[in-house]
Amino acid sequence: MNRKILFVMTLAAAVSVASAGPIEDQIRWRQSAYSFIAWNSGKIKKQVVDQPESYDKQQVIAAANAIAAVANSGLGALYGPGTDQGIGWRPTQLKSEFFQQPEEARRLAVAFNTAANELARVAQEGNVTSIKAQLGKLNETCKSCHNSFRRRD
Amino acid sequence: MNRKILFVMTLAAAVSVASAGPIEDQIRWRQSAYSFIAWNSGKIKKQVVDQPESYDKQQVIAAANAIAAVANSGLGALYGPGTDQGIGWRPTQLKSEFFQQPEEARRLAVAFNTAANELARVAQEGNVTSIKAQLGKLNETCKSCHNSFRRRD
Repeated sequence: MNRKILFVMTLAAAVSVASAGPIEDQIRWRQSAYSFIAWNSGKIKKQVVDQPESYDKQQVIAAANAIAAVANSGLGALYGPGTDQGIGWRPTQLKSEFFQQPEEARRLAVAFNTAANELARVAQEGNVTSIKAQLGKLNETCKSCHNSFRRRD
Repeated sequence: MNRKILFVMTLAAAVSVASAGPIEDQIRWRQSAYSFIAWNSGKIKKQVVDQPESYDKQQVIAAANAIAAVANSGLGALYGPGTDQGIGWRPTQLKSEFFQQPEEARRLAVAFNTAANELARVAQEGNVTSIKAQLGKLNETCKSCHNSFRRRD
């Protein structure tokens, strides 16, 4: 995938505001998306940080592609009005500030998408040091969004 | 992605038996993966079956890529021994027959992966009739596995 297409997909995914089903569905689907990302980022962390001797290039590529595909899937559609209250798999942790600061939400979403797509690119190259560094950058974008828009339970 | 790489990834994903964390984590992650697939296949169905006037090529490509990336992510690792009992987001519906019929499980997994990757390819071409037909084939692979290995609740 070339960079221009990636950039367009990143923007399209980040700024999408189309709604997607009842509130509970949106919450459950986004909880599913992030949980699936957590599994895949955990696999990469295990193979490039915790147990680098277990590094398997194809597995890391598959995991990074999975994360990027989730990031590019238009998650913005799962943040419809009212989805700061409700129960998906469990009660949502989304703060209402998310809707009060749309520019900041968009900025963080674009940062997340960009980092995820870069991780997929770096995984293809197969340099463990670079993958580790980019995984760190991706995690930072997760934390930034959590700090701004996720309630602590 | 060329066909040879796709084929290798398909096989690698389908036959992986490495475990992935405690039983509850495996169940929750796979429930997340399939729920995320359901959201994306629902988007495609809406745009090529229910409301074809809403067809957006880039959105369908993103959704199909997301499904394929999940299929290629090595879901087999989330079917470790004992995961036919336990609670992820909710109690698992996996039948113990899954572990008694590994060849059939593998056959169904490969069929699912092949159909998902073909859907991603067809989505790129942008022919709505072809996408609709391939979505039907993908759904058949889901149903086959449910019929064999999923408990009805």
